Amino acid sequence: MSETVKYLLPEEKIPVSWYNIAADLPEPLAPVLHPGTGQPIGPDDLAPLFPMALIGQEVSAEREIEIPEPVRDVYRMWRPAPLYRARRLEQALDTPARVYYKYEGVSPAGSHKPNTAVAQAFYNREEGVTKISTETGAGQWGSSLAFAGALFGIDVSVFMVKVSFNQKPYRRAMMETYGARCVASPSEETESGRAVLAEHPDTPGSLGIAISEAVEVAAKNDDTKYSLGSVLNHVLLHQSVIGQEAIEQMAMADDYPDIVIGCAGGGSNFAGLAFPFIGAKLRGGTAVRAIAVEPAACPTLTRGKFAYDFGDTGHLTPLVRMHTLGSTFVPPGFHAGGLRYHGMAPLVSHLVELGEIEARAVHQNPCFAAGLEFARTEGIIPAPEATHAVRVTIDEALKCKEEGVSRTILFNLSGHGHFDMAAYDAYLSGNLEDKDYDHAELDSALAALPAVAAE
Amino acid sequence: MSETVKYLLPEEKIPVSWYNIAADLPEPLAPVLHPGTGQPIGPDDLAPLFPMALIGQEVSAEREIEIPEPVRDVYRMWRPAPLYRARRLEQALDTPARVYYKYEGVSPAGSHKPNTAVAQAFYNREEGVTKISTETGAGQWGSSLAFAGALFGIDVSVFMVKVSFNQKPYRRAMMETYGARCVASPSEETESGRAVLAEHPDTPGSLGIAISEAVEVAAKNDDTKYSLGSVLNHVLLHQSVIGQEAIEQMAMADDYPDIVIGCAGGGSNFAGLAFPFIGAKLRGGTAVRAIAVEPAACPTLTRGKFAYDFGDTGHLTPLVRMHTLGSTFVPPGFHAGGLRYHGMAPLVSHLVELGEIEARAVHQNPCFAAGLEFARTEGIIPAPEATHAVRVTIDEALKCKEEGVSRTILFNLSGHGHFDMAAYDAYLSGNLEDKDYDHAELDSALAALPAVAAE
Repeated sequence: MSETVKYLLPEEKIPVSWYNIAADLPEPLAPVLHPGTGQPIGPDDLAPLFPMALIGQEVSAEREIEIPEPVRDVYRMWRPAPLYRARRLEQALDTPARVYYKYEGVSPAGSHKPNTAVAQAFYNREEGVTKISTETGAGQWGSSLAFAGALFGIDVSVFMVKVSFNQKPYRRAMMETYGARCVASPSEETESGRAVLAEHPDTPGSLGIAISEAVEVAAKNDDTKYSLGSVLNHVLLHQSVIGQEAIEQMAMADDYPDIVIGCAGGGSNFAGLAFPFIGAKLRGGTAVRAIAVEPAACPTLTRGKFAYDFGDTGHLTPLVRMHTLGSTFVPPGFHAGGLRYHGMAPLVSHLVELGEIEARAVHQNPCFAAGLEFARTEGIIPAPEATHAVRVTIDEALKCKEEGVSRTILFNLSGHGHFDMAAYDAYLSGNLEDKDYDHAELDSALAALPAVAAE
Repeated sequence: MSETVKYLLPEEKIPVSWYNIAADLPEPLAPVLHPGTGQPIGPDDLAPLFPMALIGQEVSAEREIEIPEPVRDVYRMWRPAPLYRARRLEQALDTPARVYYKYEGVSPAGSHKPNTAVAQAFYNREEGVTKISTETGAGQWGSSLAFAGALFGIDVSVFMVKVSFNQKPYRRAMMETYGARCVASPSEETESGRAVLAEHPDTPGSLGIAISEAVEVAAKNDDTKYSLGSVLNHVLLHQSVIGQEAIEQMAMADDYPDIVIGCAGGGSNFAGLAFPFIGAKLRGGTAVRAIAVEPAACPTLTRGKFAYDFGDTGHLTPLVRMHTLGSTFVPPGFHAGGLRYHGMAPLVSHLVELGEIEARAVHQNPCFAAGLEFARTEGIIPAPEATHAVRVTIDEALKCKEEGVSRTILFNLSGHGHFDMAAYDAYLSGNLEDKDYDHAELDSALAALPAVAAE
């Protein structure tokens, strides 16, 4: 009997268009607001930061947006990504559940992030942009944009959250190998960075701060645009290749998920897998439970407020309606994963409010325990972020065992952990900090949410 | 026009048998000798170290040896491995050469090593073995055997060359994540290790020393066998899946290599790609140039002697005829790669002597330069070992340009460099040591070769 069950699609099955869930929403997203006027912003407000093609995708209501051939051509390097049945894990758990995972770690950068990095680099090059600034948390995004920049001849500068910059020197080396520049954030290179350093010289940094720095550089330099690796509608759009391929692969398996699971920091890998399934349901198709898993150390969906907030700490971005812990919230530096953002993709937040997505928060030690169990059965070491999805997958599979029912569970193994072995090392030696949350600190950041007329 | 050209085989095309080049040799290999008697050894001499199935493969003259179904089943996790045409690299070099590479970094451990680790773990389990001891240089082998041990329920202990143990803590963490035990070699755990430490407390270690430790543990413990990740005939045999797949994939490309290139430390990834092509030639097929690339810091094929020598520093192994720098040779610790073995696979050595393989030695800074050029065009960051193959591939492609001729070049991209970013970092910051060789030191190790009656 074969224990390895892998579903591979031929190259022609790389999707020809991205799937835009905005077309299928029962209620539209709340508008993005200008922080000064409180009025909805237009394309011109975003033009200093993004090429027009991406601004168009950000507000599009078309269900399908064609993937340009040069982007599909780069996708061919690693796509279609494999989908596996986790039989060895099922056997170890002795569960009646059928567990599947889509593996996005096969990209050169080792995660799902290149799906959008390649698209963004392409559209920037098409509009003559030669420099892009961005931020990165754990480094998966920064190295993915560095990779894409190398292919499309664009100079990439990355502001990397300081705690990760120090924890993960090899991620910086990876960005530099691809030819990008990487600095620790907050840095002395921007007003936003200097302001934070003046007040908190020892800050571990945060994605919110790093975004401020990257946005500031783009806003102040005509030859530079900005790029974000998650949260925004067009980013989630590009990730839809994951779920579209998975639907085809589940059909090859003659199966369909009862539950779809992904980890959620900004929301893009979760949405990439889940939205095509949720969209099918919204259009009258098969029901599916979608579970977004976040870290207990940064519980945006489970403890945050659904409100208008800034995307960054320096308040340079427009206001978006989303689940947020407050833009002044700095998640604790102890957490090993890259899921340390105060906000959440507006599309994911909206669908949580509509009851289409469940949210769950988990602690990191149980996540690493799940990562170990997965590595020792399925052979792939999951990135710390992805262990959150593995944890809840195992929990749901064990629940099937308890209840004596078989369910089909599909999760997104968004990346491998090769650059995160220091975190595994800390876990294995019992040194991984994992405390319960300080509620007072959460509440004070939430109290500082901006007052917005439109609310 | 498509720039990404990838040749994928369906799962059914995973080879059903390994290819054994011993069947096609114009002259047989010299026998392996017992160091005490100087007489050829028999299976019983090796029985304390290896399961009988592997001893049988070591001396087999059968051309095809069936791959057991449970081994093929694990291969399915990542095999068949892709073969790419490197069009972006060709364009950057502006060469008329057609460059292809077989990519073995898609395995869970990130290199070609699991091809044999899985087979070895399987045969050990079949014969009731519960513990395996081994050595590792850069860590690719140790983590691959740890991975295979996890799948087949075998406890794995790894002696890791001390300089790599210190340079690459994440490799150790990877082995531990898979459930293996990893100690720095020389260690205090064996007589061999203690003897070296007594004389050279600050030694960086070497594969020769680590082999002594691992062999000693297996020889002294009835429940423990020994496993080697390269050099031996059965290891090269298992790697033949690489070249067998590549032959099919080159046929898909309607092309055939004029030149086949691989890096060579112990010889297994080179042999894995090249032997099926060399074998076809030996059986009257198409001519092919095969180039084995070694580091100038450990120039076994280009500066060593073809002679009987021990496989280890502690002289616990039988004597094999191979190219060797002398078993007392300790390669300089500065070298970033895993190609630091004093000897070479007897089969590779033999074929060099027969004129079927060319050898070339290269310095590591030009190798990393080639690795960078490859990463920025093809997207994949090569392991330092594999950059040796990339270097000579680029050199040969540029020679095609100079000469105005098109040749087909195929090389083995044996693994990715995710665990070696510290070496890339050192290269990028100009801190990678790369000196010319101390000839006197080489000559003194060569002078200490054992006198063997049979020679």
